[in-house]
Amino acid sequence: MSILNQIASPQDLKKIPADKLPLLAHEIRSEIINVTSQKGGHVSPNLGVVELTIALHRVFNTPKDKLLFDVSHQCYTHKLLTGRNGETFKNLRQSGGISGFCNIFESEHDAFGAGHAGTAVSAALGLCAARDRDGTDEHIVAVVGDAALTNGVTLEAFNNIASTTKKMIVVLNDNKMSIAKNVGAIAKYLNEVITNPAYNRLYADMNAFLKKLPFGEPIAKFTEKTAIDAKGFILPSSFFEYFGLMYIGPIDGHNIPLLEKYLNYCKSSTRPILLHVLTQKGRGLDVAVRNPEKFHGATPYDINTGESTSNSNKSIPNYQDAMGKALLRFAKKDPKIIGITAAMASGTGLSFLKSELPKQFFDVGIAEEHAAVFAAGMARKGYKTVTAIYSTFMQRAFDCAMHDVCLQNLPATFCLDRAGLSPNDGATHHGLFDISYLRPLPRAVIMQPSNEDELSDMLWTSINSGKPCFIRYPRGKAEGVPIKDEPETIEIGKAVQLRESDGDICLWALGNMVGEALKAADIVEAQTGRKIGVVNARFAKPLDIELLLKHADENKTIITIEDHSVSGGFGSAVLEALASNNRHNNIELIGWPDEFIPHGTDVASIRKEFNLSTEQIAERVKKHVSKRSLIREIFH
Amino acid sequence: MSILNQIASPQDLKKIPADKLPLLAHEIRSEIINVTSQKGGHVSPNLGVVELTIALHRVFNTPKDKLLFDVSHQCYTHKLLTGRNGETFKNLRQSGGISGFCNIFESEHDAFGAGHAGTAVSAALGLCAARDRDGTDEHIVAVVGDAALTNGVTLEAFNNIASTTKKMIVVLNDNKMSIAKNVGAIAKYLNEVITNPAYNRLYADMNAFLKKLPFGEPIAKFTEKTAIDAKGFILPSSFFEYFGLMYIGPIDGHNIPLLEKYLNYCKSSTRPILLHVLTQKGRGLDVAVRNPEKFHGATPYDINTGESTSNSNKSIPNYQDAMGKALLRFAKKDPKIIGITAAMASGTGLSFLKSELPKQFFDVGIAEEHAAVFAAGMARKGYKTVTAIYSTFMQRAFDCAMHDVCLQNLPATFCLDRAGLSPNDGATHHGLFDISYLRPLPRAVIMQPSNEDELSDMLWTSINSGKPCFIRYPRGKAEGVPIKDEPETIEIGKAVQLRESDGDICLWALGNMVGEALKAADIVEAQTGRKIGVVNARFAKPLDIELLLKHADENKTIITIEDHSVSGGFGSAVLEALASNNRHNNIELIGWPDEFIPHGTDVASIRKEFNLSTEQIAERVKKHVSKRSLIREIFH
Repeated sequence: MSILNQIASPQDLKKIPADKLPLLAHEIRSEIINVTSQKGGHVSPNLGVVELTIALHRVFNTPKDKLLFDVSHQCYTHKLLTGRNGETFKNLRQSGGISGFCNIFESEHDAFGAGHAGTAVSAALGLCAARDRDGTDEHIVAVVGDAALTNGVTLEAFNNIASTTKKMIVVLNDNKMSIAKNVGAIAKYLNEVITNPAYNRLYADMNAFLKKLPFGEPIAKFTEKTAIDAKGFILPSSFFEYFGLMYIGPIDGHNIPLLEKYLNYCKSSTRPILLHVLTQKGRGLDVAVRNPEKFHGATPYDINTGESTSNSNKSIPNYQDAMGKALLRFAKKDPKIIGITAAMASGTGLSFLKSELPKQFFDVGIAEEHAAVFAAGMARKGYKTVTAIYSTFMQRAFDCAMHDVCLQNLPATFCLDRAGLSPNDGATHHGLFDISYLRPLPRAVIMQPSNEDELSDMLWTSINSGKPCFIRYPRGKAEGVPIKDEPETIEIGKAVQLRESDGDICLWALGNMVGEALKAADIVEAQTGRKIGVVNARFAKPLDIELLLKHADENKTIITIEDHSVSGGFGSAVLEALASNNRHNNIELIGWPDEFIPHGTDVASIRKEFNLSTEQIAERVKKHVSKRSLIREIFH
Repeated sequence: MSILNQIASPQDLKKIPADKLPLLAHEIRSEIINVTSQKGGHVSPNLGVVELTIALHRVFNTPKDKLLFDVSHQCYTHKLLTGRNGETFKNLRQSGGISGFCNIFESEHDAFGAGHAGTAVSAALGLCAARDRDGTDEHIVAVVGDAALTNGVTLEAFNNIASTTKKMIVVLNDNKMSIAKNVGAIAKYLNEVITNPAYNRLYADMNAFLKKLPFGEPIAKFTEKTAIDAKGFILPSSFFEYFGLMYIGPIDGHNIPLLEKYLNYCKSSTRPILLHVLTQKGRGLDVAVRNPEKFHGATPYDINTGESTSNSNKSIPNYQDAMGKALLRFAKKDPKIIGITAAMASGTGLSFLKSELPKQFFDVGIAEEHAAVFAAGMARKGYKTVTAIYSTFMQRAFDCAMHDVCLQNLPATFCLDRAGLSPNDGATHHGLFDISYLRPLPRAVIMQPSNEDELSDMLWTSINSGKPCFIRYPRGKAEGVPIKDEPETIEIGKAVQLRESDGDICLWALGNMVGEALKAADIVEAQTGRKIGVVNARFAKPLDIELLLKHADENKTIITIEDHSVSGGFGSAVLEALASNNRHNNIELIGWPDEFIPHGTDVASIRKEFNLSTEQIAERVKKHVSKRSLIREIFH
C-alpha cells in the first residue's frame, strides 16, 4: 500500500517519518500526473507545490488553522492530504467529482474558495481580524503566487495588513526556476542568519531577489546601481517591509525539512511575516518543466510527449486562435491597432500578436482594472485597442468599463473570452454574467458571433466603429467555417434572419446558440412539420428593434436562446424592448438559470443537466408548437 | 479688473509677472470660496492645489501637454485657468453649468475625465504609451492625492510604469498639513540636492516622509529602528523607487517659484519621475482648514461660521445618518456586528460606529475590492459585516461580490449608499446601475427601503439573515418618519400592498419611488376618480412572485417605478418573472433611460428633465387609465 493511501487526514501525514516524505512527494506527483493526463487540469502549478503543501500540513493543523490558496489552482496536494485521495481524486473536475479549486462546501479543510487571482491576502486578513476579536490562536496562512503581486486586490490588502493584525503568515510561492538556481545557495545561507531569534537583519543579493519581483528589470537595474553606490553596504530593506511585513527568504521550496523549519519560525513571529519560497513549476514532469505556460492549465495529455490526447477535431480552430489570428491580420495593416491582455496572452490567442508585432502588444500582468483604464488612455489618443480578458475576469474591470470607457465614449474594444462555460473549472470561471453587467452601460455595444468568420467580422467592425465594443465568445472549438480574407463590416444593431418560420414561432439566438437553434429547429420540423424561424441576433445591445417589432406584429412566439444567465441577459433585453414598445407577445427565455453552475466533465453534460441540450431545447420549442396549434385550431 | 478675469487661457497665465502670482492665487481662492459657499462643492481639495495648478499651467502647455487629475475633484483652479472663469464658473455643478470634475467633452484642456479615485496613473500611462508610439514629445502629468495610493488601480498602474515608458510625471499631492510643517525645512534642503543634475542620491528624514505614506505607523516605526541600526547611514531607497520611479520631494506645494523649478526639472527627467508636493487642504478658508473632512465635499455654507446654509428641513434625518445610527444601535447589542468602509466613514454615516465602537469598525482606505473580500473573510468566521460603499464605487467590488461573497453564500451585508442621483456630481457619481449588475448574482438579496424606518428594519433583517444582502438607498433626506426602537424582521422577498386599486392598474415602486408612486396615484385619482394600486416592492431580488402573479391574473397593468436605469433593473426583473410564468400583462417600466445622466442643480430638476417628476409620472400613469377605460368600454 502506498503512503498516500494511508493518509486520510492531515493528522495521518504528521505521523509519517520524515525520511519517507520524499517518497510521499513522489507518489503525490505521480497521482497528479496520472489524473491530469487523463482529465486535464492545472498541471504545472500543482507539481510545483507538492513539498510546500506537505510542509504546510505538517506544521499547521487544519481545519483549526486556515490555509488560503490564492486562485487555488495549486490545491491538488492539499486535496490529496485532506481526505480527497483515492477514487475521489480520480474524478477531479468531472461531473459529480471534486472541484479543481478550493471550495468551502467541499471540505472543512478548504478555508476559503477562489478561482480569481489576488484575493487570498484580503480574505486571510478578514479571518485574522475575526480571530483577533475572538481571542483565539489559530494560524492563518495565505499562499500566494508571485503573479498575484501584480494584482490590485493583493496590493490593497498588503496596505491593510499591519494596521489590522500582528499575526498573519503570507507564503510567497515563487516559481520561476531560473531564479531558484541563481540564488539558492546564498539564499539558504542568508536565511539561516535571518531566522536566528535575534533577527539579524542582514540582507544580501537583493538584486537577485528584486529581479524576481513583478516590477522586473528596471528595479533590478536600479538596485544594481544602488549596490555599487552603497559600496557593498547593505541596508535592511525590502519591498514587503514597506508594508509592515517581516520578510524572510528566499528558501528552497522543495526541501521539506527546511520548509518545516521556516514555517515553524513563522508561527512564532509577533508581526505579520512573509516567507519567500522558490519552487519549480511543473517539477517532476519533464514536458511540463519545458512548457510551463502550456501545462499551466492543460487538457488531457501524453505523459511522455506532452501532446494533447483529447480527440477533438483538430482541423476546427478554437475561437481563441481565430480571434488572435484575425487581430494579427488587422494589426499588420493598421499600426494604430493595439492588443492588451492581463497575463492571458496564450489563453486569449493574443500570443500571435505578441510574437509577430510585439510593439503593438501589452501584457500588464494580472491587473484587469489597469488593463481597461490603460486601454482607455490609449484609445483617447486615437489608438484602436483590443483588450482580451476572460468574461469572468472582466468583472474586475466593470467600473473601468463604465467610468473610463463608456462614459467617455472611447473607441476601445474588449474581447470577452470564455463567455459561456469553462466546464472543468466551474462557477468561478464560467462567463455567464457579462451581458447583464454590461447592458446597463450607456453607449456599450455588446455582440456575440455565431462562428469564427463572424468573430473576425465583428472584431473588424468593433475596431473601426469608434465605439466602446464588447465581443463575447466561448472557450474552445468554433464552427469550422472558412474565414474570409477580407473582413466585412457588420451593421451595428442588425440581426440576421437565417430561416423563415411558417408564421408562429421564431428563435432569437445569440452567438454560439445560433447553431443550437438551427439544430433544434430541424428537430422540431422533422417531428411536427412546422417551420421554426431562426434569427442570428448578433447584438445583445443595441437590439435589432425593427426586426423584433416585425415579429411582434406578426404575433409570433419569440424564444430567446443565449449561453448566459437569463437574469438580466439577452432575453431580458428583448423583453424590455417589447415592453417599451407596448408589445405583449408570448416569450420564453432560454439560458442559464439563476444559480451558480458547477463544474462538469464537458459542456454537453452540464447543458444536459440544466435542460439546455439541443434535444431539450427542441422539446421546449415543441411545447410552443403544440400551444400555438391549439390556438390556431380554436381561432381559425 | 482682477488678474483672474484677464486669463482666458493658460497662455495668458504665462504672461503674468511672477510677483503677481500670489495675488492671482488669492483671487482664485476667493472665487472658489465665493462660488462653493453658494453652490457647494469640493471645497478643501480645491483650496489646497491653487498654487500647484498655477505652477502646472505655467510649466506645461495644455492642451498639447496632458494634465490628468485623479478623481478630479481638485480641478477648479484648472477650470478657472482654462477658459472657464467668470460666469461659466459661477454655474459650477448646476443644471446647464460646468461639471465639478474634469470632462473631456467640456474642454480640450481636460485630458481625461474622472470621478472615481485611482485611475489617473493608468490613464496617463495609456497616453504615454500612445505618445511613445506616435513619437511626439508632449508631457503627460498625473496629479494624484495621497489617498489614491491606497487604491489597487493606482498600484497596478505603478507596477506597469517602468516597463511601459521612460517619460511620465506623477505629482503626488500630499495634503496632510502636519507633515508639511514637520519636514518642510529639511525637505527643501534635500531637494535642492536631489534636483542637482548629477542626481546626488541622498535622502534624509525618510522617517518623516514614510509616516506620510498610507501604510502608516508600522513602517514609520520600522524605519525609525532602521535609522538607529544604520547609525545614521542613509541609503537611497524609497517606496516609489521599487516601482522604477525617480522620487523627488517633499516640497512646499504653496511656493509657486519652487514648484515651477521642480516641475521644470521633472520635464527633463529621462525616467518616470514622482514629485512629492505638500499642500494644505482647505488653505485660505479657516473653517475648512479646521474641518477638512466636512469641507472635502460641502453643501452651501456660511464663509465665516462654516455652517450649512442649505435651507432643507433639518428635522428630517438623511438616510446616511439613519443607517449609521441604526447600525450603531444594533452593534452595541451584538459584538459580532462589524462596520467596514472604504474611506467613507463620514459620507456613509459609519462615523457613529467609528467613534463609539472603534473596535467594531474598519476603514480600509479607498480600496473597495479589499473591503468586500475582507468583509467576506470576517463573514466566513461568523461576523456580521456591514460594508457601506457608494453604489457607484461598489462597481469596483463587483467581482468580489460575485466570487467571494455570493458564490460562498456568506452572510455579508452591503449598504449601497447614494443609489439614485448624486445630483451636483453627475454621471460618475450617480448610482443607477447597481440592481442591473447585482441581479444576475445567484443568492444575492437586493432591497431598497421606502423610508428610514424600513431602512433600519432592512439593515436588521440583512444582518441576521445569514445571506449576502445588498441594501440600496439614496443620498440625502429620508421621509421624516419615526424609527422604531426595536427593529422588525422583514420577510425576504415579500412586497407590501400599500393601496388597493379599483382593478386595473398597479404601481410597483421600489424604495424612494414608493413615496412618488403614492403621490402620483393621488394626482391620478383626483383627476380621473380612478384608484391606482401602489405596492412597496421592497425587494428587487427575490421578487414577490406570489403578489405579482396575483396582479397578473387580475389582468392589471403593472407600472414599475425605480430610481435606477430601466436597462436590467427592477422593472426588467418584473418582466422576466412574468415571462417565465407565462403572463403577458401590459407593463410599463419607469426609471432612468439608457444614457449617462448629467449633473444638475438638484434631484428635482434632473428628474424633470428626464420625465420623472411626480407630475410627469402621474401623467404616464394617466395614459394607462385612458387606455384601460377604453378597453372597459369595449368589453364590458
